[in-house]
Amino acid sequence: MAPRSSWLSIPADSHFSLANIPFGIITSRHSQIEKRAAVAIGDHVLDLKAFAADGGFSALPSFQEHVAVFSQPTLNAFAALGQPVHREVRAYLQDIFAADTAHPEILKDNAALQKAALLPKHDTKTHLPMQIGDYTDFFAGINHASNVGTMFRGAANALQPNYTHLPVGYHGRASSVVVSGTPIRRPNGQILADPSAEPKVPVLGPSRRLDIELELGCFLCTGNRMGEPIPIGEAASHIFGFVLMNDWSARDIQTWEYVPLGPFNAKNFGTSISPWIVLADALEPFRAPKLKNETPVLDYLKEEREDTVYDIQLEVDLTTPDGGTTTLSRTSGKYLLWSFAQMIAHHSIGGCPMATGDLLGSGTISGTGKNDLGSLLEMNEGGKKEIMIVGMDVRTFLLDGDTITLRGVCGGEPGALVGFGECSGTILSAPDLP
Amino acid sequence: MAPRSSWLSIPADSHFSLANIPFGIITSRHSQIEKRAAVAIGDHVLDLKAFAADGGFSALPSFQEHVAVFSQPTLNAFAALGQPVHREVRAYLQDIFAADTAHPEILKDNAALQKAALLPKHDTKTHLPMQIGDYTDFFAGINHASNVGTMFRGAANALQPNYTHLPVGYHGRASSVVVSGTPIRRPNGQILADPSAEPKVPVLGPSRRLDIELELGCFLCTGNRMGEPIPIGEAASHIFGFVLMNDWSARDIQTWEYVPLGPFNAKNFGTSISPWIVLADALEPFRAPKLKNETPVLDYLKEEREDTVYDIQLEVDLTTPDGGTTTLSRTSGKYLLWSFAQMIAHHSIGGCPMATGDLLGSGTISGTGKNDLGSLLEMNEGGKKEIMIVGMDVRTFLLDGDTITLRGVCGGEPGALVGFGECSGTILSAPDLP
Repeated sequence: MAPRSSWLSIPADSHFSLANIPFGIITSRHSQIEKRAAVAIGDHVLDLKAFAADGGFSALPSFQEHVAVFSQPTLNAFAALGQPVHREVRAYLQDIFAADTAHPEILKDNAALQKAALLPKHDTKTHLPMQIGDYTDFFAGINHASNVGTMFRGAANALQPNYTHLPVGYHGRASSVVVSGTPIRRPNGQILADPSAEPKVPVLGPSRRLDIELELGCFLCTGNRMGEPIPIGEAASHIFGFVLMNDWSARDIQTWEYVPLGPFNAKNFGTSISPWIVLADALEPFRAPKLKNETPVLDYLKEEREDTVYDIQLEVDLTTPDGGTTTLSRTSGKYLLWSFAQMIAHHSIGGCPMATGDLLGSGTISGTGKNDLGSLLEMNEGGKKEIMIVGMDVRTFLLDGDTITLRGVCGGEPGALVGFGECSGTILSAPDLP
Repeated sequence: MAPRSSWLSIPADSHFSLANIPFGIITSRHSQIEKRAAVAIGDHVLDLKAFAADGGFSALPSFQEHVAVFSQPTLNAFAALGQPVHREVRAYLQDIFAADTAHPEILKDNAALQKAALLPKHDTKTHLPMQIGDYTDFFAGINHASNVGTMFRGAANALQPNYTHLPVGYHGRASSVVVSGTPIRRPNGQILADPSAEPKVPVLGPSRRLDIELELGCFLCTGNRMGEPIPIGEAASHIFGFVLMNDWSARDIQTWEYVPLGPFNAKNFGTSISPWIVLADALEPFRAPKLKNETPVLDYLKEEREDTVYDIQLEVDLTTPDGGTTTLSRTSGKYLLWSFAQMIAHHSIGGCPMATGDLLGSGTISGTGKNDLGSLLEMNEGGKKEIMIVGMDVRTFLLDGDTITLRGVCGGEPGALVGFGECSGTILSAPDLP
C-alpha cells in the first residue's frame, strides 16, 4: 500500500512523514519567548497554539474544550488527557495534512492559517517537551549489561542473579535532562589516578573516560495513586510516547563512586533527549519481539504478546571538531529483554506513584556484534582499544569538542518513515577546579 | 539569658517557641481547599496569606512586593527569594509575636487580624511544604553505614573504600515523598523466600522486613546552573531549612534488587517528612562538630569550621495497634560524617543542576550504642533478634497497624525549644497481589 500522500511537500526521506506526527515544544524566530506545542511534519512544524487559535480544531468538536493545552510551555497538560485523546488528535492532524483531507478548508485551502501556523522548521527552536517529574533509568539492554558485566566480573558472573527476573533500574536525576542541541560540559569529579594502587586515594579532575549510552526514553501520560500498582495489562496505556536518549556517563567517576548505592555524579551532569515525542500509535507497525528470556517471569510481568518492543533503526554518529563524521554504531531498539510496559508494572508494583511527565530510560541498547554497540566502553573494550574514526584519527573516550548524534527511524518506505530526528550534544571542556 | 517572651501563650515544652518560627503549608477547617503558607507558633499557626492580606507585613516594607508567595500551595516561591529574605521575615515574625514587639498594632493589639490569621493548630491540616524537584538520599551516618556494612560484608570491609572520601548518595524518588500523617502501604515486591537457596528464585509478596530509616531532610532554596558547581563556601547559603525524614525501607526487596544499581522498589513506596521546615538560622545555636574523619578530604569538600551539623535530640517511637508506645531510640543529629554543605558541594561538583525545592536526605542516623540506632535492621541485628516493646510484646520488623513517630528538638530551656514536631506514619496492609 502506498503511503497516504500530503498536499504539503514532505521529503521522501523525512523522519516526520504523515505516518508519524510527533509532538514537541517550540519557539520561533518571530516569537522567541513563548513556548508552545507543535507537531513536526516534513520540513515544517505546525504551531498548535496558532493553529488552535484560528479555528484549526473546529472540525474536531470533542477537542475544542481542551485546546488551551497547546498554549502551555510543556506537553504535560496534553499528555494528561490520555491516549484516546492523543489518538484522536493525531488522526485528525493526519487528515488535515492528507492530500484527500476531509477538511480542506481548515488548512489546505487556508493560506492565512498556513502563514500563521505552518512554520519552516529552520525558523523554529525546540525545547524540553515535558516537565519531568521523576526520571528512572532501566538496564533492559541485556547485551550491554552482559558486555559490561563481563568486563567487571568475568563472563561467568556477567549478569547478576536478579537480572532476568526483574527489569533492574535506578532513579536518575530529572533536573539534568536536556533537549538535543544543549552542550554538555565535561564533569569534574573524584577519580582514581591509578585504580590498581592501594590504598585507593582519589584526585579531583575532569573525567577522562567520558562516554555515551544509546537509549530509548519513554514519557508517561498518566500515572497511578500511591499504593496502587499499575497492572501489566494496563501499563502500555500509561505511555505518552518515545524519544531517543543519550545518558552521558563518566566511567572513571562511576567506577569509584558506584558502590554500594549505584551511579550518581557519573550520570547527573547531563542526559540528552530528542525533542519530538513519537506516539506509541506511530510505532505500532514496527513492533518486534523482545529478546528471549529463558527465565520464567512472575505473573505481574507476564505480557500477552512478545512483540512489545520496536524495531527502530538506531545510529550513533561521532563528529570531531574538524568536522569529520564517523558512524560508530548501527543497532535496533528491539534489543531489549524487557518492554516499557514491564518496566512500568515493575516500577509501580510496590505502590510507587508515577505521574504525567515521568521519563523512563531503556538502558543502553547494544546488539551482539562489533558494530552495533551502544556505548564507547563496549566499543573500546573497557578502555583498552582505540576506535578508528575518519581522518586517520582514533578515540577511546570523548574529547572536548566532539559531538555525538543519535538517530532513530522505523520503516524503509520512502514517504512513510517514522523517525525521531536527532539527539545531539557537543562536549565542552570541564570548568576550572574550585 | 531568659528566652524572649511572647504575648501569645506558648507552652513551655512547645517545639515551636519564639526561637523557632518554622514554615509550612496548611489548609484549615474553614478553608479546606486552598493551600497556603503558615508558620507554627506554640499551639497556633499563623496563616501567612491571611496575615499578609490584612496588612500583616505593612511594617516590613521591603517584603511587601513579595507577599503573594504566601498564597501559593507550596513554599517554593518563598524559598526562591533566598536566605536574606527568609532571615528578615523570620526576624519580623519573631518581633510580631514578642511581648515587647515594636509593632503591637499589627497583631498583638489587633483582634480582627488575630481572628483572621492566628488559627488553633488543631483546626489546621499540614501538607507537603515544597514541590520537590529531585530528591537525593545520602549515606552520611557513618555508624549506620558501618553497622549495616558489617552485617553484609564483615567488620573488616564494612565501609567501601570511597566512604570517607566522598558523601555517598543516590537519587531517590521525589514522587513518593509524603507529609507526616500519610499512611504507608506495605509494598509487594520480589523477595527470596529462602535467600540462601540456589538458584535464587524470587516470589512476589508483601515485604516481611519493613523497616524505617531515621534521617534529617534538607530543602534547598536556590540552585545552580548546569555545569557550574556550587563551591563549598557558598553551599550553606543554598539551604532553605530542615525536616525530619523517615525513609521507609523494605529490606527483603532491597537485598534482592539492589545490585548493581542501588535500591529502587525497596525505597520508592514512601518517604515521610515532618511538615514544618525549620530554617538554618533557628538551628544556628545548636551547631555541633561532625564526626571526625581521619581521611583527608579533597579541597572542594573542605569546610572552614567543623561544627557544621546540629545537635538535634532525635527520638523514634513505635505505637502498636493496641495503643502502647515504645521509644525505640534516642540519638542525635550530630552523628554524621558529612554536613549538608558538603553534600551540596559534592552533588554539584560535576555540574549537576540543583534547584529550589530539591530535598537531600542525610542517610540513617545512628549513635554507637544499643539504644541510639536509626533503623530496625540495626536494632534487630540483621533480623536475628527480637526487639522488646511494651505490653510484653516484641517486634523484628514492622507489622500492619504499627505507627512510627520521629521527633526532633534542640535545646532544653523551657520556652526556647527549637523543634520539628513529629514525623509519623502508620503501616497499612499490602494490596492484593495483581
